[in-house]
Amino acid sequence: MKNSLFGQDLTTVDSLEASDLALIFQKTDRMKKLTVEKGGDDSLKGKIGAFLFFEPSTRTFSSFITAMQRLGGGIIPLNGMKNTSVEKGESFEHTVRVFSTYADCLIIRHPEVGYPTKATQVSAVPVVNAGDGPGEHPTQALLDVYTIVRRFPDKKELTVTLAGDLKFGRTVHSLAKLLLKTDKKINFNLVSPEMLAMPYEITVKIKKSSSVFETSKLSETISVSDVIYMTRVQKERFENPAEYEKLKSFYRLDKSLLTRAKKEVIIMHPLPIAANEISHELDDDPRSLYLKDQLKNGLAVRMALLDVILNP
Amino acid sequence: MKNSLFGQDLTTVDSLEASDLALIFQKTDRMKKLTVEKGGDDSLKGKIGAFLFFEPSTRTFSSFITAMQRLGGGIIPLNGMKNTSVEKGESFEHTVRVFSTYADCLIIRHPEVGYPTKATQVSAVPVVNAGDGPGEHPTQALLDVYTIVRRFPDKKELTVTLAGDLKFGRTVHSLAKLLLKTDKKINFNLVSPEMLAMPYEITVKIKKSSSVFETSKLSETISVSDVIYMTRVQKERFENPAEYEKLKSFYRLDKSLLTRAKKEVIIMHPLPIAANEISHELDDDPRSLYLKDQLKNGLAVRMALLDVILNP
Amino acid sequence: MKNSLFGQDLTTVDSLEASDLALIFQKTDRMKKLTVEKGGDDSLKGKIGAFLFFEPSTRTFSSFITAMQRLGGGIIPLNGMKNTSVEKGESFEHTVRVFSTYADCLIIRHPEVGYPTKATQVSAVPVVNAGDGPGEHPTQALLDVYTIVRRFPDKKELTVTLAGDLKFGRTVHSLAKLLLKTDKKINFNLVSPEMLAMPYEITVKIKKSSSVFETSKLSETISVSDVIYMTRVQKERFENPAEYEKLKSFYRLDKSLLTRAKKEVIIMHPLPIAANEISHELDDDPRSLYLKDQLKNGLAVRMALLDVILNP
Repeated sequence: MKNSLFGQDLTTVDSLEASDLALIFQKTDRMKKLTVEKGGDDSLKGKIGAFLFFEPSTRTFSSFITAMQRLGGGIIPLNGMKNTSVEKGESFEHTVRVFSTYADCLIIRHPEVGYPTKATQVSAVPVVNAGDGPGEHPTQALLDVYTIVRRFPDKKELTVTLAGDLKFGRTVHSLAKLLLKTDKKINFNLVSPEMLAMPYEITVKIKKSSSVFETSKLSETISVSDVIYMTRVQKERFENPAEYEKLKSFYRLDKSLLTRAKKEVIIMHPLPIAANEISHELDDDPRSLYLKDQLKNGLAVRMALLDVILNP
Repeated sequence: MKNSLFGQDLTTVDSLEASDLALIFQKTDRMKKLTVEKGGDDSLKGKIGAFLFFEPSTRTFSSFITAMQRLGGGIIPLNGMKNTSVEKGESFEHTVRVFSTYADCLIIRHPEVGYPTKATQVSAVPVVNAGDGPGEHPTQALLDVYTIVRRFPDKKELTVTLAGDLKFGRTVHSLAKLLLKTDKKINFNLVSPEMLAMPYEITVKIKKSSSVFETSKLSETISVSDVIYMTRVQKERFENPAEYEKLKSFYRLDKSLLTRAKKEVIIMHPLPIAANEISHELDDDPRSLYLKDQLKNGLAVRMALLDVILNP
Repeated sequence: MKNSLFGQDLTTVDSLEASDLALIFQKTDRMKKLTVEKGGDDSLKGKIGAFLFFEPSTRTFSSFITAMQRLGGGIIPLNGMKNTSVEKGESFEHTVRVFSTYADCLIIRHPEVGYPTKATQVSAVPVVNAGDGPGEHPTQALLDVYTIVRRFPDKKELTVTLAGDLKFGRTVHSLAKLLLKTDKKINFNLVSPEMLAMPYEITVKIKKSSSVFETSKLSETISVSDVIYMTRVQKERFENPAEYEKLKSFYRLDKSLLTRAKKEVIIMHPLPIAANEISHELDDDPRSLYLKDQLKNGLAVRMALLDVILNP
């Protein structure tokens, strides 16, 4: 398979084609096997990744630096960049140019939308978006879609419920768009309070090829879902705390709610689970993938992505 | 020698048997030789260690990440974890589960007792305790015992003085218990103010097989000691600062105090030395091992431990 | 060529001889080639560098840890050391001794002059100064001199303009002294407000073998310069903000000012550019080397230096 991603940036899932997905997912299969069998190899030996996290992160940061090292690469690990040249007044563009002379790729997280894309304009090396504010989080979407398609290889149609904060949750934005690029027909259930609804332009986009059912009641979607994808409802998004208290129970998943679910349903979450939106009693449930497959797949997807971007 | 530690946790020295000590110490000898001759090797190639320090550390953290890298392994270096998912409200259990899907072992330091043990209940990979509050610090105890037994290979009986804060000093708790697992008879001198005395349950334990002499005067123990193990007396443990000022000189070791010591006595300290409890004039004294053997042995013990845990 | 730098410290450019420069620069040529062709190699395999930055840094820190890893070495990356043993009251000497038992070399940045030299007195392994307050920054000087001599291989005489804060800028101190060790005759233009003039002892030193022209007007030096080396004028150095506002435009370089410059002039800056002392319109000008050659050469010089210090 020709590697069309070599030397390319990945700042949004919009740039990915079905053939790119196929390439990354095939490579991801191999990375999972490699990790189990040998831990890693030397395919990125002599390569350095600069992990420029202008907003601190635990999970994504650690997953990325692990991926780089499992393939023999080196790391510039800057988690929560501060006390740095940026504070001395250096422009973002200069910072990017500096690191693009040291490293072979830049993995950038930023609290504001668009900064990874801005970086691509001046970087001499490929840039990967590791989350830009409420914007996108393409590697999370890749791992989520990989997890879904590998779980249901034979189904031609899937009903996917996205629940919680669909407005500010960058994860679900990238995920919804990327699901459209698979060869499956997707029926979406979008579950959120009105004030946290999916942005209009994304809803319009997915309505072109998918059925979309919008509701504020999680319970209405349980019995038809193949995938229930939960996200955090962040208390600080609500001006009125009482409103948050009232709403949050609509977005709480527990065993009792799942009694009406399909037998093969899978439960996903991008983590961290902060407000008990998924009951702890589900952590070890075989239907729950958020503490297992999603994490393992996340590491493997990032290994695959770094490999295809850095090796021809 | 069969490797009974492969895949095992190490959260307390209580779990170690005499044969485990023999295995680790034999491997430590080899690691010292390896470091001098070649710097390291590839025995942990393809392995990743997650160093989750919920309380910041300089020495132990650096020693562990050096050990991992000298054997060709990769690192997730999180010194003083914060601004992280934990702050977003994620449970400790979830954090542990996340890292146990990325890494091949977890090395955990935590300000509260028991967290490394808690981690073993949910981790899919081995957990090593790198210090849990006033609890235990097993790798420090291993390096200390290694230092002592290699220094006195032919002596069947040793008098070991532990001085300073024996109540909150996790190092001396692990050390006292681990010394009992060697093939030497140990006579303990426990030197501390009454309010900082060794916890009752540890004293009871060591009295079963050792003689124990308790005093608040360091000077009373100098002439009979083979090992003088000093620890910090932390000012903040005292409600009355005047009491601290009065007591601290009882726990200060200098050349003049050592005039009555045995010729072969060794002076140890887990570092850092903060309040001049060992006079600087002793830093380069051949009897002092705290800036030399203990550090070199600490690195080698950690290399040995990671190797036996991660390689069958 | 005999490697006279093996096992040596580098705390000041004063210790470097012309033959050392030749050795480092020849090795730097090879490192640039190696990086382009293979990314790196294993010449520092089994070696660990401890990067002890008591003052945080982005660029120098990242450049050094990249250099170490491109040659297969491991890292103890402590950027902005704090919450550490130092805070618990440990002496600087003890901290240095600790790390010199773990690592094969210490790379030290410190906010106060002289600490790297202090470290050499107790370290068991080579120490490299990565910047000590307003003192020196020898690896920056090496990369700057390398950049200059490789740009003008055939010129026997060069006019070098140093502009901005020449008093507190450690970079220009090391650079001025090191330029004297090349085989070129150097004519210096020193451009600064009087209160930020080059320290007297350095001016005396360079006057022995070079012509020196001192002025507070950048414009007076443009037409004769082969090299224009700009530095930050730091606002906080001025007691009177009005004075800063008045002066700063004298040290601003833009395209219009360069119309009178020589065709082959090169523009350099140690970065970060914080107060627009070089106009952004020059960032992509072929005469500007600060975002290109200086950075690439900085990485290669540090690879070369670590290699000659750590390999016989």
